[in-house]
Amino acid sequence: MHNLKSVFRRELPVFAALLQEQISTLPPLTRPVAAHILNSGGKRLRPLLTLLTGRSLGPHHQDLYTLGTAVEILHAASLLHDDILDNAPLRRGRPAAHTLFGVSSVILAGDAMLGKALLRVSSLRDPRLTACFAEAVMHTAEGEIDEGANLRNPDLSHEDYLRIITDKTAWVLRASCELGALRAGGGDAAVAAAGDFGLHLGIAFQMVDDALDFSPPSVTGKPCGGDLREGKITPPLLLYLRSLSESERTAFKTSFQANALKNEELEATAAAIFAGGFAHKTRSLADRHLENARAALALFPAGRERDILDEVVNFVRHRKQ
Amino acid sequence: MHNLKSVFRRELPVFAALLQEQISTLPPLTRPVAAHILNSGGKRLRPLLTLLTGRSLGPHHQDLYTLGTAVEILHAASLLHDDILDNAPLRRGRPAAHTLFGVSSVILAGDAMLGKALLRVSSLRDPRLTACFAEAVMHTAEGEIDEGANLRNPDLSHEDYLRIITDKTAWVLRASCELGALRAGGGDAAVAAAGDFGLHLGIAFQMVDDALDFSPPSVTGKPCGGDLREGKITPPLLLYLRSLSESERTAFKTSFQANALKNEELEATAAAIFAGGFAHKTRSLADRHLENARAALALFPAGRERDILDEVVNFVRHRKQ
Repeated sequence: MHNLKSVFRRELPVFAALLQEQISTLPPLTRPVAAHILNSGGKRLRPLLTLLTGRSLGPHHQDLYTLGTAVEILHAASLLHDDILDNAPLRRGRPAAHTLFGVSSVILAGDAMLGKALLRVSSLRDPRLTACFAEAVMHTAEGEIDEGANLRNPDLSHEDYLRIITDKTAWVLRASCELGALRAGGGDAAVAAAGDFGLHLGIAFQMVDDALDFSPPSVTGKPCGGDLREGKITPPLLLYLRSLSESERTAFKTSFQANALKNEELEATAAAIFAGGFAHKTRSLADRHLENARAALALFPAGRERDILDEVVNFVRHRKQ
Repeated sequence: MHNLKSVFRRELPVFAALLQEQISTLPPLTRPVAAHILNSGGKRLRPLLTLLTGRSLGPHHQDLYTLGTAVEILHAASLLHDDILDNAPLRRGRPAAHTLFGVSSVILAGDAMLGKALLRVSSLRDPRLTACFAEAVMHTAEGEIDEGANLRNPDLSHEDYLRIITDKTAWVLRASCELGALRAGGGDAAVAAAGDFGLHLGIAFQMVDDALDFSPPSVTGKPCGGDLREGKITPPLLLYLRSLSESERTAFKTSFQANALKNEELEATAAAIFAGGFAHKTRSLADRHLENARAALALFPAGRERDILDEVVNFVRHRKQ
């Protein structure tokens, strides 16, 4: 990962400075909330995708930073709203914004950040960029609602799950790549390839996340089974359910649906899911989408940026946290 | 109000149909929430302003409906988030959306509606429109936070109050008019006049609202003193406080700040504020802003639309609910 690491090291401070600048031009009362979420140590995967896609398909241009920054601000705004819904006490090991600033301020800071991101995109005066951005806002919200509506629904199908994570997670990664391709002046085929790449990368990214949630703390450094506790249905659980006998499955579904599983039962189930290899199998499902991403990437012009995007595919495949 | 009424009667069904169309293209799970808030009997003041401003400054164009619809969707989205913050049980006499659909769905439906409104604006392919819209999103959020941060702050000045309502309420009315002027191809002076008109109309609109909150139910059909109960500082209360003796004021401030006023005290204070003429005086403050709005309107080309906008000024001045 020599190239990816060096790009990461070079670009991270650039994005940090640009985000700082954007925070300082937000309405005053929203700044502390924006600073809290934007400085919480994200990997800046989305802006890097915009930058690399744009540079792969056209010459480097400062606008790619503007778009990358906007995408990161949009992502942060959706994390703010998302943590409220999940009633999450922590985000990346630090107190979630709403526990520090209150729910009202955080809802509104998210709105203001959305407005700011939009203002950045619209400053580039290309309506295709604004439309792509607006679609991402809508789909992310839809995915979150869809997920919430299907909490503790043990009859969720794999197709339902795919629909939810495509909206909730993958759409913004897709938009990150499309924005780069559009700004690079890519034709329809190039923009479609960039979108496909981001979409499948995003689906795989979420699947790996869902697999990691059942991996022991010795691997991830985080407690496991959080999704199970929250009632989220993900592939490791779906695969586990399929492995049970009819009567075991019915008993589990009933308790799970009623949120009646005791702490020891939750821990035992999470351990059984990992021991049964269902986290590992979920990573295999993710691999298929990473292959699709790679197929889309093959349509990009050969070169350094394409190689680095290929390293991003590997990064998603192998990440441990 | 012959002209305003006939425009209202003619355009309302048009906007209703267009909004219905937009609701039907929202992500499925957000549609019931959007329908609930958008069909709750609003006056469609903002889209009418876009339509009338645009027609006054240029030829009629279908795009004015697109912009008006976007502004109404933005306004509805901000009402959804606002009602959560205020923990309001009712909106226009009907259950507030979050009491029916849950807080999570309503936060996200608001986000999706923002995305949809943005998509409508960006479809017109004019970055000045998108930028104007984005500014309105940011300022509305800032105003809401500012208001929340100053609840039960009895030392709020009139200038603080003006800053809050300019962001919270007036900015969207300003944007409604600016969007119409921009689409009409108005020059800088015309766009500035349209913005000034909307801004002062919006400030006055909020002041009249705040005066009505202290008017007896026999006038408004609604219980009075709601703002006082919620701890909102508005001109009737500020003027009342100024009329008290030093010791009375200190005593009131202390109880108000601590939210320690009993129900009878709240009712007696609300009645004293109305009897002391402070709601009436607030309407006089609003009148000054309506005069500013009228001065801006004088810069519009003479004609039927300008006359109707003048009727809107009168409507804001005299409204009883």
